[in-house]
Amino acid sequence: MLRRKLFNSIDLFYGIRNIQRLSSGRFLTYKLKHTLVVNKREIDNEKEIKNSQDINAFTYRTHTCGELRPMHNGKSVTLCGWVQYQRMSKFLLLRDSYGVTQCIVNNNQINFNDVPLESIVKINGTVSLRPTNMINSKMSTGKIEVVIDKLEVLNVADKVPFNLRVHQKPKEQLRMQHRYLDIRFPDMQNKLRTRSSMLHNMRKFLIETYGFVEVETPTLFCRTPGGAREFVVPTHYPGLFYSLVQSPQQFKQMLMAGGVDRYFQVARCYRDETTRPDRQPEFTQLDIEISFTNLDHIIKMIDQLLYETFTKPLPNPPFKRITYTEAIENYGTDKPDISYDLRFKNVSHLFNNNDEAILSAFVLPYPAELGKLSSKYKDKIKELKQKNNVRVILNENVSKELSNDMKCQIQSIVGENKAFILALGDKEKVCTCLGEIRQQIAVLLQSKELIEINKDIEPLWIVDFPLFTEGDNGLETCHHPFTAPHPEDFHMLDSEPLKVRALAYDIVMNGNEIGGGSVRVHNADLQEKLLRMLNIDASKLMHFINALRSGCPPHAGIALGIDRLITIACDADSIRDVIAFPKSHEGKDPLSGAPNVITEDDKKYYHINIVK
Amino acid sequence: MLRRKLFNSIDLFYGIRNIQRLSSGRFLTYKLKHTLVVNKREIDNEKEIKNSQDINAFTYRTHTCGELRPMHNGKSVTLCGWVQYQRMSKFLLLRDSYGVTQCIVNNNQINFNDVPLESIVKINGTVSLRPTNMINSKMSTGKIEVVIDKLEVLNVADKVPFNLRVHQKPKEQLRMQHRYLDIRFPDMQNKLRTRSSMLHNMRKFLIETYGFVEVETPTLFCRTPGGAREFVVPTHYPGLFYSLVQSPQQFKQMLMAGGVDRYFQVARCYRDETTRPDRQPEFTQLDIEISFTNLDHIIKMIDQLLYETFTKPLPNPPFKRITYTEAIENYGTDKPDISYDLRFKNVSHLFNNNDEAILSAFVLPYPAELGKLSSKYKDKIKELKQKNNVRVILNENVSKELSNDMKCQIQSIVGENKAFILALGDKEKVCTCLGEIRQQIAVLLQSKELIEINKDIEPLWIVDFPLFTEGDNGLETCHHPFTAPHPEDFHMLDSEPLKVRALAYDIVMNGNEIGGGSVRVHNADLQEKLLRMLNIDASKLMHFINALRSGCPPHAGIALGIDRLITIACDADSIRDVIAFPKSHEGKDPLSGAPNVITEDDKKYYHINIVK
Repeated sequence: MLRRKLFNSIDLFYGIRNIQRLSSGRFLTYKLKHTLVVNKREIDNEKEIKNSQDINAFTYRTHTCGELRPMHNGKSVTLCGWVQYQRMSKFLLLRDSYGVTQCIVNNNQINFNDVPLESIVKINGTVSLRPTNMINSKMSTGKIEVVIDKLEVLNVADKVPFNLRVHQKPKEQLRMQHRYLDIRFPDMQNKLRTRSSMLHNMRKFLIETYGFVEVETPTLFCRTPGGAREFVVPTHYPGLFYSLVQSPQQFKQMLMAGGVDRYFQVARCYRDETTRPDRQPEFTQLDIEISFTNLDHIIKMIDQLLYETFTKPLPNPPFKRITYTEAIENYGTDKPDISYDLRFKNVSHLFNNNDEAILSAFVLPYPAELGKLSSKYKDKIKELKQKNNVRVILNENVSKELSNDMKCQIQSIVGENKAFILALGDKEKVCTCLGEIRQQIAVLLQSKELIEINKDIEPLWIVDFPLFTEGDNGLETCHHPFTAPHPEDFHMLDSEPLKVRALAYDIVMNGNEIGGGSVRVHNADLQEKLLRMLNIDASKLMHFINALRSGCPPHAGIALGIDRLITIACDADSIRDVIAFPKSHEGKDPLSGAPNVITEDDKKYYHINIVK
Repeated sequence: MLRRKLFNSIDLFYGIRNIQRLSSGRFLTYKLKHTLVVNKREIDNEKEIKNSQDINAFTYRTHTCGELRPMHNGKSVTLCGWVQYQRMSKFLLLRDSYGVTQCIVNNNQINFNDVPLESIVKINGTVSLRPTNMINSKMSTGKIEVVIDKLEVLNVADKVPFNLRVHQKPKEQLRMQHRYLDIRFPDMQNKLRTRSSMLHNMRKFLIETYGFVEVETPTLFCRTPGGAREFVVPTHYPGLFYSLVQSPQQFKQMLMAGGVDRYFQVARCYRDETTRPDRQPEFTQLDIEISFTNLDHIIKMIDQLLYETFTKPLPNPPFKRITYTEAIENYGTDKPDISYDLRFKNVSHLFNNNDEAILSAFVLPYPAELGKLSSKYKDKIKELKQKNNVRVILNENVSKELSNDMKCQIQSIVGENKAFILALGDKEKVCTCLGEIRQQIAVLLQSKELIEINKDIEPLWIVDFPLFTEGDNGLETCHHPFTAPHPEDFHMLDSEPLKVRALAYDIVMNGNEIGGGSVRVHNADLQEKLLRMLNIDASKLMHFINALRSGCPPHAGIALGIDRLITIACDADSIRDVIAFPKSHEGKDPLSGAPNVITEDDKKYYHINIVK
């Protein structure tokens, strides 16, 4: 009974969610050996886990707390770790990031009664088999225990602000304030270790299989025209500032001009977007660029890279590819969640008497079993309708608002047993609005089990983005000013620039954009023309234009958002869960309280004054 | 004759220095296959270079310009690259970062007369064997040529500011201004590729062999008390700033408290030290930390890491280890160059009548064959003597300034056939001064071939540093405030703090400090005591102290300066040569001119004013 109780705490600690989370990992060769996860096969396996890594080298422990098995019976071992639990001066559960080992005392010489939980101890002891009826099959070390010969308290812990029990996880704010405690949770350990191993496998793919060169580029640089707000860094030259790069874009293109024809970098990037939720002021991207390549090559490479390094099963490449127009006309967004099958139908032709579609009309068909929408959902849809300034007709109002003939025509298009929501107005607004309604309806359908959700991850490429969009002050770029126009649309660059497609591509996973890139402009004259069209002062980019003019190969590239990618790979709730020390929503560091005031000496040195 | 001339340019391009530079690489498995270097064995080898990497994947070339061999005879190939040289509309040397291939035209349809050098072309052609008398044995592709079927100019180059001829390398300033051109030089390509492969091999060592986890830590953080000046980054909160981290020190220690017991990171660090030569405002360090370890374990790990990943042969580990006191008393510096054997002798006992040595006296013995020092060297020594405020007696003045008896006693200590320089005064100043003189004398001895220089690199550990030094405002730390005192000296912490040794260690290569670290304080009370002794406000470090108090394992770590390490690995002249886009001495970016002025909008957003 005593032992039973002890094991309950272990079961709580090693939550079932973690087991599922990793069992499907395909390329986690380095990670899986040392995860915290209790792997079921492992438990049934009498053999020692054969570690390819010498995880105890350069330490004074002989084994981790997740390593001992019946084959170690009789062995003298040294374990180090945290006091996870202790009871009646007899049992001590010792934890490290590899598992938990039960240690026991057989004499009265050793007393750990007064050692607080989470203290650090070093135990010399002898491995012993547990009696058969005491075996814990849910614990990887559950067939053995360590009889303590010597116990040394290396560091006493004060009372900790929260206990490390998986099912009593504290609120995020408290976790963040004591992140050094929070990352002791097995799921946090798994996430950090998954991140490390996935990035390492990406590097191996790029360097060892395909001969890429990792090049570190500066983060202290000049402002890049257009794009997000960049942090500025004062220098001791009065009035002169660096900008923290928002991406290595200019550098990687200059590397192409410089003959580093297969470049990548796991790059730290900075954007001052603290006002947007789920954004971090600094983030990591896998930045890739290749010379003498094209759109199809890049897409093929990323397909292969993700297929081989992602920790969850992905469909066989090539991954699905749709155009931007298809994405908008079917899902109302350029990052559609295609894990459920809900698509629009274009019924504009029913509302326009001639070929020129002035009025756009799209319907979102859905299973009629859903019945009437609750007023909560109607309110949401009303909100979206007003926001987007389009006319929306709910299924229940169709008879009221449409002629019977029109209703029949639409019904024949969406099919029997389908209800539908109709939106009318400007095409872009209609689709955007219907896309937002689609997400609401999907949640509703899912809660009533009227729609099938594909739990597997299906990456989706979006291609053929427009090159430009219409901004308040003229043309704006959809991707960035270095994106090449589609050669088929080149003739419209002057006449109808908004119709010109870009050689740009995004990759989306379950409704999240996880990467994007483009074929770049390699011709200096074309680059200058595009900058002029975008009203960007080319004089700030002369070093870059000169690089294009110095003999620059055609090139293309992509950047993958590592924080988001790992979030999906780990089934994490937020990118903050896959970042060791994230900032809060407001861009504040929950540990140190940064940002902070600076000294008068700093202000003097950097020639700045604060304006309140 | 025509062909002869052509090849001269290749010989110039692929300088002999590069061949030597890489031939000794031990672990360059990924790099060597694709370097620019003409490897002699390769040239004699009829076989195709067996590439483990698919270097042409995801491109529209079929081969690189360094890849074709007689076995490809008759094959249709597509090559892409830079026009390195062309002559008489017949011969075109096509270059990429893997080599040079000679392409020829056999008809008048193809004309590349007007294509400027450094333009980018794509060539479809057929591999053909060269006539025996036309074989160039110095060129890896020297047995074949490519008969051009189709030539496409992909990007025309403007006149470039300098030619890519190794023996006409332009001045550094011009190279930096056009870095995208400069990195086309084979030696620059080699350096960037060596850097990538050495870092990859370090990651493999740490992750695959020893189970380390790479964790990315923030660079936007709070100021760390003590240490170098940190850049500040204004936020849109009035008066609040981030600091750019000078190292991940606090984070890695919090990771130890968090159970990430084997951490590393290739970390970007920032120091505002633009006024010091050969420093970059941002730099890279390999940052490592381990729990449950000690000084010997860390040293052993780094020995092994360097032995297995450094591109030049190193002696078998363990590498030499001396104490700080030995370093000072023998070489007058804590980063001695031991590639030549010149050491001091302590002769203080000759000048002190009792046991307590008030006056320190050290001699630097050197081969008497050197004879009298020139006035140039005497002036230098005079300068050093005055700077350090010590008495220095040159060999030629010994008879004049010392008694005959004293002279004989010293001569018997330094040995026959040795001249010597004597320095008298405060011990630290005497040794520092004599250490600087040692470097001067070594240059002189080397120029006259009177001293043997060990060309092999011999790493050297310096241990037993003092924990504190005396500063203007009391005690200062020698390493950083988180360094553990030597347990044997613990009793002197209050009574004689300056005598307390630290558990700190530096590693030196040929007179350059390439890394340093320490066993850290893991006890919160001791940490607070040390902060008090150092007059550092602990309230700014409460998150850190709390981490120590939450159950933090004993831990130790190190950081290696990657820029300097790669500089030595590549025999480069400066760290700027192993950084893709370095800043100038003044911290300015030679390409973009950064730092720059910022906009009024930025000033408003960040609530700052410039004080001129």
